[in-house]
Amino acid sequence: MTIHDWSTGPYPARVRIAVAEKKLRSRINFVSVDLTKGEHKKPAFLAKNYSGTLPVLELDDGTFIAECTAITEYLDGLDGSPTLTGGTPRETGLIHMMSKRAELELLDAISVYFHHATPGLGPHVEIYQNAEWGFRQRDKALRGMAYFNGVLKKQPFIAGEFFSMADITVIGGLIFAGLVKLEVPAEYEALHAWYARMNERPSVKNRVTMSEPA
Amino acid sequence: MTIHDWSTGPYPARVRIAVAEKKLRSRINFVSVDLTKGEHKKPAFLAKNYSGTLPVLELDDGTFIAECTAITEYLDGLDGSPTLTGGTPRETGLIHMMSKRAELELLDAISVYFHHATPGLGPHVEIYQNAEWGFRQRDKALRGMAYFNGVLKKQPFIAGEFFSMADITVIGGLIFAGLVKLEVPAEYEALHAWYARMNERPSVKNRVTMSEPA
Repeated sequence: MTIHDWSTGPYPARVRIAVAEKKLRSRINFVSVDLTKGEHKKPAFLAKNYSGTLPVLELDDGTFIAECTAITEYLDGLDGSPTLTGGTPRETGLIHMMSKRAELELLDAISVYFHHATPGLGPHVEIYQNAEWGFRQRDKALRGMAYFNGVLKKQPFIAGEFFSMADITVIGGLIFAGLVKLEVPAEYEALHAWYARMNERPSVKNRVTMSEPA
Repeated sequence: MTIHDWSTGPYPARVRIAVAEKKLRSRINFVSVDLTKGEHKKPAFLAKNYSGTLPVLELDDGTFIAECTAITEYLDGLDGSPTLTGGTPRETGLIHMMSKRAELELLDAISVYFHHATPGLGPHVEIYQNAEWGFRQRDKALRGMAYFNGVLKKQPFIAGEFFSMADITVIGGLIFAGLVKLEVPAEYEALHAWYARMNERPSVKNRVTMSEPA
């Protein structure tokens, strides 16, 4: 399998972490798509993913699977343990809900802020910006941090009692927050403590370098 | 189980269709949340779903599951047939990808258009609007229609050879398009033909009245 991605990107990080958690690194070939040159918005890449976003998983039969949740579902289905998407309907429902909520309220909101209210990837890529909308999304992301801090006061992981895709999505959000220098307020202690624990996981710690030759 | 929804809403439609396809109607109690009064943005509802969106599934143990994809995953996990989310990793990956793409490129785009560039649910609910962003999203949705028309020229269903959650999400998009009078251009013949077939399915045809007393 091939993953088309960008080593430091927050969305690519979600899939890199999933690959490492599932111990699938040896089965993956990484190909870099240069975000800074806008390669992800050019026809050759759009033929792989209509939405023009990274990462994309290319199967050996030539099938392209885009969208982090879809790729994570694919990888998780290859074998059973550890599960990233749950083992019962209730677990699966909660993991998908919290992962989507982490997109809506944190990761995607920060992405819109980055692309619309900061220079983003530069004027040759950000050909349309709506700064007002971008700043609204930044404020939404700050509220999202407060929400997830509250969740983590009550339970050790984002979707409950074990590590899952939902944790990975919030990690993606905080990676993006770091890139755009949107600090997590110090008083969100539960969120800070959880993120420190997450950064001790090899899947998270080694995500950027995992695609380099050993 | 209880579903908190609004009988004519496009997102509630996604879960109503899933309930009917899975033949689970007899196990569901429907509760109406009045969108026109903004009940979904009030504290009592936000305690059920932080994001303030419909629908929400309430399990008998008091667990709330929001987000259509998460609810569909839950319902699909209750038994095996017919599957709405796929039976192999490849099927599951493609279904999740196409369903997410239908949100990004069609349904969510139309929702933003509705809430930001039309009167939406009225001034007491739409307390902030960004019309420029709303019109951009309308144009994105029109491009999305062209994209899905192209998909349906090559295969009978949105994610391939069988009906799935991805079809339901595009149906949600075209329901919303109808509500905001965003016409599918006549030349998108494959999309029109598919939608006519979808509207013949009892799950789609009877979605609004399914919650009424028999």
